Amino acid sequence: MILTVTLNAALDVTYEVDALIPYSSHRIQQVYVRAGGKGINVARVLATLGEQVVVTGLCGGSNGAALCDDLKAAELNCSLVSIEGESRRTVTVVATVRGDATVFNEPGPLVTAAEWDHFVQRFDSLVSQAQVTVCAGSLPRGIPVDAYSTLIRIARRHGSLVLIDTDGPALLASLKAGPDLLKPNAAELRHATGIEVPLKAADSLRGRGAHAVVASLGADGLIASTPVGRWRAQLAQRLDGNPTGAGDACVAALAFGLAHKLPWPQLLREAVACSAAAVAAPVAGDIDASALKAFRPLVHLEELDATDSDR
Amino acid sequence: MILTVTLNAALDVTYEVDALIPYSSHRIQQVYVRAGGKGINVARVLATLGEQVVVTGLCGGSNGAALCDDLKAAELNCSLVSIEGESRRTVTVVATVRGDATVFNEPGPLVTAAEWDHFVQRFDSLVSQAQVTVCAGSLPRGIPVDAYSTLIRIARRHGSLVLIDTDGPALLASLKAGPDLLKPNAAELRHATGIEVPLKAADSLRGRGAHAVVASLGADGLIASTPVGRWRAQLAQRLDGNPTGAGDACVAALAFGLAHKLPWPQLLREAVACSAAAVAAPVAGDIDASALKAFRPLVHLEELDATDSDR
Repeated sequence: MILTVTLNAALDVTYEVDALIPYSSHRIQQVYVRAGGKGINVARVLATLGEQVVVTGLCGGSNGAALCDDLKAAELNCSLVSIEGESRRTVTVVATVRGDATVFNEPGPLVTAAEWDHFVQRFDSLVSQAQVTVCAGSLPRGIPVDAYSTLIRIARRHGSLVLIDTDGPALLASLKAGPDLLKPNAAELRHATGIEVPLKAADSLRGRGAHAVVASLGADGLIASTPVGRWRAQLAQRLDGNPTGAGDACVAALAFGLAHKLPWPQLLREAVACSAAAVAAPVAGDIDASALKAFRPLVHLEELDATDSDR
Repeated sequence: MILTVTLNAALDVTYEVDALIPYSSHRIQQVYVRAGGKGINVARVLATLGEQVVVTGLCGGSNGAALCDDLKAAELNCSLVSIEGESRRTVTVVATVRGDATVFNEPGPLVTAAEWDHFVQRFDSLVSQAQVTVCAGSLPRGIPVDAYSTLIRIARRHGSLVLIDTDGPALLASLKAGPDLLKPNAAELRHATGIEVPLKAADSLRGRGAHAVVASLGADGLIASTPVGRWRAQLAQRLDGNPTGAGDACVAALAFGLAHKLPWPQLLREAVACSAAAVAAPVAGDIDASALKAFRPLVHLEELDATDSDR
């Protein structure tokens, strides 16, 4: 089983408009509502891949209730801890003419120390069944910045590998406990290290505690820095489509690969194919098995040596 | 008592951003949530003016629950009818640098025939205590287009005057039952009549069934077409500020004037002063008594005769 943790779960609301015209009024024809937050999005992809998955995290208020209902409707196993605060919404305004999205992210609830303790206990009991744990997304206010380090240590005691997908102070604080795999994107990698060259930056995060780092560089594919080698994996052709959800699909494929003990080259191929399938999907993040199969042979994998570290 | 009807009540959500940048992501620092919809906004102003007011309308789902909580917190008497559908949200993104607002209006719930019947029964019992009834705002889907005509006829049976503030087909369909006062804005007036000159357009709505028409023309003040005369009332000086809520403040003052049987000239002065107080208020729609007092002497009133009908 793969356990995904979403401490700042969200109710993702999408509004469709013809065009976004600042400082005017828009009549929305249709409102789409879905449970979101990185860990939940990753769990959806894992379920699509046929993997056993359990969703945990924090949720509260009417947004929390709505997101729980949506998870149940999607038949995802979940064990979320209730909090007093109101879970956040994200509002995405999609302009159908351009296909572009304007996003408004609410700040999320304030979590009490008692609620965090309650979550840690719940996590301790859930993680004992997990081969892999995915901790993804931001930390809501009130949660200690080194929360992911706490979870990594508990997971390790139960023999679960941990993949971390976050940014800023939460990413840096997770290094202390040595995450098995860190998945930053290009901006997060640069921001965390101050280093412009992705492979050098990934190496530096390994030097600071991460066992392996796979960075997603958008159209430039993935670079991986691991104890057994370094690789770049990339789609052999450019891809048009909606990049929303590609990062979560990548994390899902990496977690799947860790759970099934795939060797790194195969794991990276899967992650690139899965990201590409998400980009090509008509609805953000909805991938299907046939697209995944079609993209697999199009992934180009290259081993990088020490002299490549300026790339 | 004044009864306000809000059939398409809303949960008004405000996001503050530094600037709205289309096709980018915005981190919201603070989320403001308030019960809204024209009739509810009018009721707030009436309560501020010290008037006894009862809020009725339809509400449902988690947004409906949140807006009921907010009305209770504001200590407004309310008697809303529950529906199965989810009440709409409006999302207003205020750019603090420019002070301008970008608005997203959800479509609102689908109301069943049984729910509408239930509301009509509730209205019948509430309106018996009302000197004036204010029906304000759009009709949610499923409600007959002549809903306001139905309510006017019931109100008349109980001796309550009815003020209508709506637009489009709902405005035109309300004329059949002869509303006591219609309060369109400039665009609604033009749209309903196809006539560019406001006074001519107001006269034409009187010819089609309205007993009196007061149109709000923004900085150009109000024009009134009534059985006993026609007037223009206008602030003697231009006013800077936030026009959001000025229309609802105007309707509140008109309803107050009808309830207290003020003569038209005095009633129009009050309506202009109340609108101006709303524009000058730091928070949209929050007026205070001292501002109202300050603006009263600044209202210029002019009686219009037949030769003015090309104005």
